[in-house]
Amino acid sequence: MEHRPFYAVRPLLPVYPEPEDLPPARKRWVLVQGASVLHRDTPGPGTVLAPDPLPAGLACGEPVYLGTRDDLVYYAAEFPAGEVLPDGWHASPVRELDGKVPEGDMAIAAYAVRMLDFDRTTAFCGRCGADTRPLTTERARACTACGRIIYPRISPAIIVLVKKGEEILLARSPRSPPGFYSVIAGFNEPGENLEQTVRREVGEEVGITVRNIRYFGSEPWPFPDSLMIGFVADYAGGEIRVDHQEIEEARWYSRENLPSIPSKTSISRALIEAWIRREI
Amino acid sequence: MEHRPFYAVRPLLPVYPEPEDLPPARKRWVLVQGASVLHRDTPGPGTVLAPDPLPAGLACGEPVYLGTRDDLVYYAAEFPAGEVLPDGWHASPVRELDGKVPEGDMAIAAYAVRMLDFDRTTAFCGRCGADTRPLTTERARACTACGRIIYPRISPAIIVLVKKGEEILLARSPRSPPGFYSVIAGFNEPGENLEQTVRREVGEEVGITVRNIRYFGSEPWPFPDSLMIGFVADYAGGEIRVDHQEIEEARWYSRENLPSIPSKTSISRALIEAWIRREI
Repeated sequence: MEHRPFYAVRPLLPVYPEPEDLPPARKRWVLVQGASVLHRDTPGPGTVLAPDPLPAGLACGEPVYLGTRDDLVYYAAEFPAGEVLPDGWHASPVRELDGKVPEGDMAIAAYAVRMLDFDRTTAFCGRCGADTRPLTTERARACTACGRIIYPRISPAIIVLVKKGEEILLARSPRSPPGFYSVIAGFNEPGENLEQTVRREVGEEVGITVRNIRYFGSEPWPFPDSLMIGFVADYAGGEIRVDHQEIEEARWYSRENLPSIPSKTSISRALIEAWIRREI
Repeated sequence: MEHRPFYAVRPLLPVYPEPEDLPPARKRWVLVQGASVLHRDTPGPGTVLAPDPLPAGLACGEPVYLGTRDDLVYYAAEFPAGEVLPDGWHASPVRELDGKVPEGDMAIAAYAVRMLDFDRTTAFCGRCGADTRPLTTERARACTACGRIIYPRISPAIIVLVKKGEEILLARSPRSPPGFYSVIAGFNEPGENLEQTVRREVGEEVGITVRNIRYFGSEPWPFPDSLMIGFVADYAGGEIRVDHQEIEEARWYSRENLPSIPSKTSISRALIEAWIRREI
């Protein structure tokens, strides 16, 4: 089964070399302020993708080439922190645009935030401390002194729906909104395969063992850089015992008594909905 | 189906805080020289894991805590480049120890090389350029100036066996040893799910399209930091057209005319063997 992800709808192609001498009509801009994007209230294709880098004549940072999609070429630019936003524009975390902008535009906005974050957090070489500069041949930066090449980081993580008879395990993190529950998730660690990560995370967070781990689908989750890899597993043994750090409450839920679950854009929700439909 | 990975056999647990005041009998050492590990010719548990950090009284770098497995605690230490090796010791890339040391020891040796590489390549903060220091609470480093926390990188990559009737697609990279063929592989890019990576890599490297992509298994491949996520897919259309960069030759092979294929430690080999046994 192939899960259709939200944030990977029609991803940008980072085509190199960067197209040159484009007419303005073929360019689109994402304006980023820290971890937020600028957007308008009016719904539609122009909500988050500006046809012009300076919607109200205000100065942005240097344009950062993102990539192409269909005939358009996309750029990001940093809008200075603390500056007053142009009339009719707001700054929001990308996740809050859910449902307000087309899926593909949201994916590009998330990509823009992530690539500016990549540039900010790899400005210096981790090996020798010298300045880095962007390559013109691929999405990467190179150290100006030792030549080390740095690619954008992707952090693989598992997310797993645990089944026990007609019930599933849902848990609350201390950071979740009140009444909000989700499935177990956690980062893959060096040296582990994904199935070992599933067993370790379920063991650490809720104290039970699982068996019969099967793949569900995968989804980039760019907040900031996760790749979520979804699994279904069967309860094997143990009593629920939460760690009180990652998880503050966890219990078994049937289809009839489900609590509030994650938004439609997440693979967590897709897992739960597939289970409700008895597909997994 | 769950593929049993080689490098994830009994992985180390990076337990924190680091155990203190251990008797020497509970310690084991991996001596690393650049991207190689020191090892002896004599097979067995002592081949790569030294009971003593200074096998011939030579100075190594500061011990780096790796983690625990069973009752033993493991450390890595850097053996200076260019130094004459102690009598009876050699330096080899971890992959060349395949078959010469127990699987679990090889996994720890690979982990040691990787963690020393992590320390070397994150000595400075990418955001502000200041020094970093290791945390004592988890496997990570923190910037001494801005506080940014840096975790070891894991680079997710796909590896895919493409089937067409009774044949599979095998390809040679210009970097492969002569006569050596493997399945298609490549790194996941920001914004893609794994299935999109499969389609893009197969398209870029050999010019064909695939359908019916299903998960096979995953394996950490610590040379230096990949997580290989294996898939099987069916040929959908197109003629093989190699890119002459990643791939210099590719063609369809039946069970009767297979060329030289990867070593038993790889998920690539596991994919091909599962196909030979008609399990996938």
